[in-house]
Amino acid sequence: MKKSTLIGGLSLTALGIIAAASPALAQDATEAAAPEFAKAADTAYIFNTLLFLIGGFLVMWMAAGFAMLEAGLVRSKNVSMQCLKNIALYSIAGLMFWITGYNLMYTGVDGGFMGSFGPYSFDAVGGDSLDTGYSTASDWYFQMVFCATTASIVSGTLAERIKLWPFLIFTVVLTGFIYPITGSWEWGTGWLDVMGFSDFAGSTLVHSVGGWAALSGALILGARKGKYGPGGQVTPFPGSSMPLATLGTFILWLGWFGFNGASQLAMGTIGDVTDVSRIFANTNMAAAAGVVVAMILTQILYKKVDVTMALNGALAGLVSITAEPLAPSVLQAVIIGGVGGAIVVFAVPMLDKLKIDDVVGAIPVHLLAGIWGTFIVAWSNSDASYTVQLTGIVAIGAFTMIASGIVWFILKATIGIRVSEEEEALGLDKVEIGVEAYPEFGQGSQRV
Amino acid sequence: MKKSTLIGGLSLTALGIIAAASPALAQDATEAAAPEFAKAADTAYIFNTLLFLIGGFLVMWMAAGFAMLEAGLVRSKNVSMQCLKNIALYSIAGLMFWITGYNLMYTGVDGGFMGSFGPYSFDAVGGDSLDTGYSTASDWYFQMVFCATTASIVSGTLAERIKLWPFLIFTVVLTGFIYPITGSWEWGTGWLDVMGFSDFAGSTLVHSVGGWAALSGALILGARKGKYGPGGQVTPFPGSSMPLATLGTFILWLGWFGFNGASQLAMGTIGDVTDVSRIFANTNMAAAAGVVVAMILTQILYKKVDVTMALNGALAGLVSITAEPLAPSVLQAVIIGGVGGAIVVFAVPMLDKLKIDDVVGAIPVHLLAGIWGTFIVAWSNSDASYTVQLTGIVAIGAFTMIASGIVWFILKATIGIRVSEEEEALGLDKVEIGVEAYPEFGQGSQRV
Amino acid sequence: MKKSTLIGGLSLTALGIIAAASPALAQDATEAAAPEFAKAADTAYIFNTLLFLIGGFLVMWMAAGFAMLEAGLVRSKNVSMQCLKNIALYSIAGLMFWITGYNLMYTGVDGGFMGSFGPYSFDAVGGDSLDTGYSTASDWYFQMVFCATTASIVSGTLAERIKLWPFLIFTVVLTGFIYPITGSWEWGTGWLDVMGFSDFAGSTLVHSVGGWAALSGALILGARKGKYGPGGQVTPFPGSSMPLATLGTFILWLGWFGFNGASQLAMGTIGDVTDVSRIFANTNMAAAAGVVVAMILTQILYKKVDVTMALNGALAGLVSITAEPLAPSVLQAVIIGGVGGAIVVFAVPMLDKLKIDDVVGAIPVHLLAGIWGTFIVAWSNSDASYTVQLTGIVAIGAFTMIASGIVWFILKATIGIRVSEEEEALGLDKVEIGVEAYPEFGQGSQRV
Repeated sequence: MKKSTLIGGLSLTALGIIAAASPALAQDATEAAAPEFAKAADTAYIFNTLLFLIGGFLVMWMAAGFAMLEAGLVRSKNVSMQCLKNIALYSIAGLMFWITGYNLMYTGVDGGFMGSFGPYSFDAVGGDSLDTGYSTASDWYFQMVFCATTASIVSGTLAERIKLWPFLIFTVVLTGFIYPITGSWEWGTGWLDVMGFSDFAGSTLVHSVGGWAALSGALILGARKGKYGPGGQVTPFPGSSMPLATLGTFILWLGWFGFNGASQLAMGTIGDVTDVSRIFANTNMAAAAGVVVAMILTQILYKKVDVTMALNGALAGLVSITAEPLAPSVLQAVIIGGVGGAIVVFAVPMLDKLKIDDVVGAIPVHLLAGIWGTFIVAWSNSDASYTVQLTGIVAIGAFTMIASGIVWFILKATIGIRVSEEEEALGLDKVEIGVEAYPEFGQGSQRV
Repeated sequence: MKKSTLIGGLSLTALGIIAAASPALAQDATEAAAPEFAKAADTAYIFNTLLFLIGGFLVMWMAAGFAMLEAGLVRSKNVSMQCLKNIALYSIAGLMFWITGYNLMYTGVDGGFMGSFGPYSFDAVGGDSLDTGYSTASDWYFQMVFCATTASIVSGTLAERIKLWPFLIFTVVLTGFIYPITGSWEWGTGWLDVMGFSDFAGSTLVHSVGGWAALSGALILGARKGKYGPGGQVTPFPGSSMPLATLGTFILWLGWFGFNGASQLAMGTIGDVTDVSRIFANTNMAAAAGVVVAMILTQILYKKVDVTMALNGALAGLVSITAEPLAPSVLQAVIIGGVGGAIVVFAVPMLDKLKIDDVVGAIPVHLLAGIWGTFIVAWSNSDASYTVQLTGIVAIGAFTMIASGIVWFILKATIGIRVSEEEEALGLDKVEIGVEAYPEFGQGSQRV
Repeated sequence: MKKSTLIGGLSLTALGIIAAASPALAQDATEAAAPEFAKAADTAYIFNTLLFLIGGFLVMWMAAGFAMLEAGLVRSKNVSMQCLKNIALYSIAGLMFWITGYNLMYTGVDGGFMGSFGPYSFDAVGGDSLDTGYSTASDWYFQMVFCATTASIVSGTLAERIKLWPFLIFTVVLTGFIYPITGSWEWGTGWLDVMGFSDFAGSTLVHSVGGWAALSGALILGARKGKYGPGGQVTPFPGSSMPLATLGTFILWLGWFGFNGASQLAMGTIGDVTDVSRIFANTNMAAAAGVVVAMILTQILYKKVDVTMALNGALAGLVSITAEPLAPSVLQAVIIGGVGGAIVVFAVPMLDKLKIDDVVGAIPVHLLAGIWGTFIVAWSNSDASYTVQLTGIVAIGAFTMIASGIVWFILKATIGIRVSEEEEALGLDKVEIGVEAYPEFGQGSQRV
């Protein structure tokens, strides 16, 4: 970080300016002018790369959002574990998306069902190839954080009863293989892309895949002890901290501007940056509508507003608009997001009726709103068709359910995936990691 | 988010490069060179739009800052409600600033008192008009988050006793009508702008407007039960979580770089980006001075440093520099922010003497420091005059107090704005939303 | 923030476009084309400045990360104090780096041992000098937040027993003098730079300097009462909030993309922005490896995963890669970060054996991993040599230990640096600042 580095980096340009300013050297207008002006391809390359970097760090930040959301929605005896799982899964996703994920998703798919195996390598230091139109490392970074998001979705649903290491092994498979394979079908220009399937930023490719993986895990793992009584009664297990859940939601909302906005993949032209702006605005409107609809519906249904529903309403609005944040008019974005909010309000009790125990509501938010958002693309985007959208939803759902199910079954049959009843009662923090979240108050200090 | 999209987006440019590289086609230097170099207007458009997007997401993040600050400063029995109000008001602001706010503030004001009615519409997909110099959606997004900030200020002052829905109805009016109207007077090039009033990023237009609306609400709503005794004694109601309040302050400080910096509205020239940089530095210095002054003063006055005063000192420093973060020298910025910090230390007990119950200190921070910052613009900016600054402060204050007061009175006379004494004692979380913030510890688990 | 400002800012450019478009004016291709295209030097200036601003606000955000990490790792009776110290030190660092720090570090060092004295001044409003290649205020802002980071490191180690004001006085000296002097040796192009020492983003200049200052303070201050028993037993004092510690770690991880990425100091060429991207990817890989290694090692050693070790593993991975985040291959980055994670797992109990009481683990994370990262630069960067790296590590370590030690001794001998035993037992929140962190639960409400 020496200052001399910078001066060095600018010297050629500076030289160019001096040369151009000297009349004696200005023999040929084109030649002399060349170093003075910014090359369009270079400028576009820098803008595109910058979009990936900014979008990437915003989506990386979503990992913290999931951590806080889940830490707030589980009981205090499982908060440390939830924090640990979230930082661990983000780390694993980063490693796996380098070792195998990126190439499996993006290299040589060519209309097919998956790419190639092997670790990814970046541009060399000072790389100056313009071929891709952006730095390969920035692209990798941006795609990697999407992969991590998928894994984050799973951890919330399965909280409070799944063992640490089996969960992490599942994360290895999900981020290294399952997500990249279905991702390759569309973003890797595989068979679904050829067919005309459309999923701009991942309502299906990221959110539903995470949701399907969570659902298969929830079915195999079973509900938390005491959640569903024999007579059909449902016992609420309130989350330990609403402000942390709120913080997590705000973090996710913020990160989503990168998630959807930078999925434009370019901002080197005024058309591209205008599209990124539309995406920002539409993304915000859908989330806002999700909140308002969830609030009004819970007020009508329950005579009180449920704050967790409002938070999940925001997230469902965001997931809903993710498949097509660019084409909708503002009013369409409001409707798409508002329906997402309604889905959450009706789906959460429905899952409880089915005795599917989803601790944080990730299945309504990510899977169901993801399906809705993907399906409704055809409303605003004339290039999409409802039939092809359904085809993609079903194909990716089926593959993810089956592949995830196989992994969960193998883990269950071998090392086991669920803690004992006694351990569940004590809380995973005490039993599995030995660090309580709030040792001086709460369950940590008062019970067991 | 297919990779092919990007390649497509770059193809024209790429073609240009190839054409220019071919000697046969280089008949005319200007023509051949044209596609090779970046057009200045395009590059400026992209930079300006990017400034709005980055500034916008930073200011959006301030909504989370207010949520955390307020969640930390209210008692645990009202924390969930405060979280809910903050995500709800941000959502409502987004919707209202589309439905009516933006056009009322910015379209056709022309020296007058307000713009036009009706929802705003953005550039079309791939929009390529350079007329505005930035994408309209990015501008809308950036202005919208300012509108939301105004509403955030109100929620803190009125915490712990105002009913949810009346507060939200007030938010609808504030963000859809009151804020845009006074905003139009200055930023919409209305009558105050014509007169020469100067408020760079909104010490008055955002912070004081929020502060006046909060003040009128506090006067009509009354103090929390038990806050002020008959003999003039003041009972402190300590906030439930200092780390959340601290987090909120840091979030606001971070977001303020977008708030002030991106209010330069352009970074497509070196002069503009240099100004944005000055603004970043001055903004930081003012906040730092606010903290240090508040700490030293509370140490002297009370023999202990009050952490909430230090936090509010930072915020007051930030509000103070917001009216003119560009023109001051560093030393001036330090003084302006330092005085802001002092205002908080002296005004908080003064408000208590007046029995105005401001739960989080928003009136000293946003209203009083906002007035100070607006007035002192004339010190560093030779285009401003103290008289005109005062005119603007008074005009906007009078309008906001009257307009807000009318709304509060109507709400009070119809659906009522205050919860019952019993409900206030129980806490709004239990009574109005049914979700406790910390069900396993604190008041949640131990009382009632 | 009037819209007219923007139009004004664009007028020259707009004029240029009109002129160029008019055939009558296009007499000379070079002249006419000049205003139409973006000048390379201008565009580079804007990109470089933007990199400083984005990198700067990300590193500023790390101040919040340290605040949350430390608030989570101290006991609840000291949480408010830790919050206060963190916002205070960030403020002081900003003021001191203006008053004396920047010039001492960067102006006129010229192969020597320090720069000049006196406050720094920025480019004038609308400054249009291209000499530096970036706005001076953006550079100051970016370097200032590095200075603040150094101070943040100290506060964690010395938590729970150091007095507020002596700590702040030490911060004045550290940020105004000690850090800038050693910084000048390398980044100010002083004697270590001449010798060929290499520390890209500050494994030594920032992290080890903070670590040495913390170590000297810990030695002089002594351990917390009750931490080390007479028979060599170590009593764990668990932190009050794991989710806050996790949040802090995620914030730091996010901020580190700015810390390392923007230390490239330029992104105006495709080579530079490609390097920034490589740095983002390598930084993430090193942190991920740190987490995974710390988790596996604690599982093997203790049969449980320690969540605080996983968090510190991430930070140690980040510190390790900071000295050279650009040159390593991905595999090298993974190894460098992974070793950092291992260092934490082994060093934390080692420090306890030495009875050095480091409340948050800052010495293993910042000092030891910082030494490791600086030393191993020579593995991937052929311009560096192990011998010179060691020379820099030792020289900076010796100076910082001695200088810090002198300051700590003077403070101890005069105003005293440690609270009384009784005060320590009561907690600093009650005794020194009078605001409890969690007044309604935890130790705050139940004890004393």
